[in-house]
Amino acid sequence: MERDQAAVSRAITLIESNQHQHQEKAGLLVEKCLPFANKSIRIGITGVPGVGKSTFIESFGTHLADAGKRVAVLAVDPTSTVSGGSILGDKTRMETLVNHKNAFIRPSPSGDSLGGVAKKTRETIILCEAAGFDTLLIETVGVGQSETTVHSMTDFFLLLKLAGAGDELQGIKRGIMEMADAIVINKADGENKKPAEKARSEFRRALHLYPPKESGWSPNVLLCSALDHTGIEDIWKMITEFETTVKENKHFYHKRRQQNRFWLLQTINEHLKSRFYNNPEIKKELQNQMDAVEKNETTPFAAANYLLSMD
Amino acid sequence: MERDQAAVSRAITLIESNQHQHQEKAGLLVEKCLPFANKSIRIGITGVPGVGKSTFIESFGTHLADAGKRVAVLAVDPTSTVSGGSILGDKTRMETLVNHKNAFIRPSPSGDSLGGVAKKTRETIILCEAAGFDTLLIETVGVGQSETTVHSMTDFFLLLKLAGAGDELQGIKRGIMEMADAIVINKADGENKKPAEKARSEFRRALHLYPPKESGWSPNVLLCSALDHTGIEDIWKMITEFETTVKENKHFYHKRRQQNRFWLLQTINEHLKSRFYNNPEIKKELQNQMDAVEKNETTPFAAANYLLSMD
Repeated sequence: MERDQAAVSRAITLIESNQHQHQEKAGLLVEKCLPFANKSIRIGITGVPGVGKSTFIESFGTHLADAGKRVAVLAVDPTSTVSGGSILGDKTRMETLVNHKNAFIRPSPSGDSLGGVAKKTRETIILCEAAGFDTLLIETVGVGQSETTVHSMTDFFLLLKLAGAGDELQGIKRGIMEMADAIVINKADGENKKPAEKARSEFRRALHLYPPKESGWSPNVLLCSALDHTGIEDIWKMITEFETTVKENKHFYHKRRQQNRFWLLQTINEHLKSRFYNNPEIKKELQNQMDAVEKNETTPFAAANYLLSMD
Repeated sequence: MERDQAAVSRAITLIESNQHQHQEKAGLLVEKCLPFANKSIRIGITGVPGVGKSTFIESFGTHLADAGKRVAVLAVDPTSTVSGGSILGDKTRMETLVNHKNAFIRPSPSGDSLGGVAKKTRETIILCEAAGFDTLLIETVGVGQSETTVHSMTDFFLLLKLAGAGDELQGIKRGIMEMADAIVINKADGENKKPAEKARSEFRRALHLYPPKESGWSPNVLLCSALDHTGIEDIWKMITEFETTVKENKHFYHKRRQQNRFWLLQTINEHLKSRFYNNPEIKKELQNQMDAVEKNETTPFAAANYLLSMD
């Protein structure tokens, strides 16, 4: 098993490389992995810093690995620098999981754009699946668009929260509630237990306000204490129920197809834009045209036509 | 005044024409109007069919026109056919307003895409402003992305609702609550008054769940009866307050600049995509590549690269 993981590690390093020659090799490798991929559940996990994501993943991942699941933990962090990922970097918080024979942990790839990081993570998912990992935990710290990105590459999206004092719903990023398949209130232990139960009711009420999901799944709110290892089993039970539901009604497969379509078109659209806007002449003229629009000398439409005529 | 409006009408017809020669003339005309435009408040109005949009606009618009405002009513309806707009088409519901010397009503332009309809409406706004209209009501029926489109061309966004039985928040389209600067519960008359007041509390509570707006404005919920003409004045008072707030904190100007930027970039991006995807060879190969992705023969990224290499 350890040799496997070293091989996976080396393959991911190839994927993460920005060298042209490596990228070509990586592309071939991923293609060869494809027939063996896709047999997994991909779980996205988000939550603000301090919510206890690492402790949760340590506890949840170890529970699954102990039960015989092969768990790969990946991360999408658009703020990660060239030197390596900034989340999951601190593996000391995942002491048990990091040494578990059934687990594999990889920090966020670095990249100069979220699109680049996302592409590398998507390819790493395929690699891990082909290597036999059946449970993927994909963490994001939730900066900018990273939650939407992780949502678009996972089957199940879990929002980790803490019970605070008072209005729990304030400060939740726009759109997150709509994406969540479950909200898990972490650190529901000791004195925190009562506030956590109150928060659960509030979140349940709030979730009720959203229109039903296309998946047919009704998002749930659970409590857990990663520290006391309570509630962890129920979370896995819920995800298993989810999997059964969406595989029975075929939404699971439909969503993965949709995600592939999305990534295909997304890659093209990003590329078309970067090709246009990185043209030095257009870059310069864009600023001129923006200024002209601001001074009411031209309309946004006339300015756009002018810029397009330069391409 | 009537001669003015006939001239505006003819100019809009030029904007709405799809003939190349007309479009060129229209572009020049809009450019000449620019220095005289922008001095207005642009109000977006949305709500599902049956909520009483026409009656509301008749009542609200007449109130403003009577008070000396010059009111232009436009519409964005992506479902409008070649023969003319499908909303605001029924001017019989706006009998008073349609004959008011201070008012001008124009149905949705037709177009083969929402982008096309939006462009024409944006240019019509400039034309109307240059012609001296100081209050623009831009209606949308809220199909697909049309609400986002109207939101991106207006200063104030008003969501019209009815009090129903029970859970008022169910069935509100995703994202609408976040866009609304005000929710107005229409038909709050007779037996409907009590349910409307209850709905008001529920909406207020729901709005409270959203993070504060960048504009510094806290969305409000008001009641009105377009039929009894009650509540109409308060709505205008609220919009005036809004205008004062966002002009004082400069958000008004900031948002209009942002909107211009958005439309400039949006036009370019749409054009880049349509140029690529309408290439017949790419169109054909896109389907092949999608099929290959579905069969796990290639990744979305490899497929995208292949298609881009054809361009």
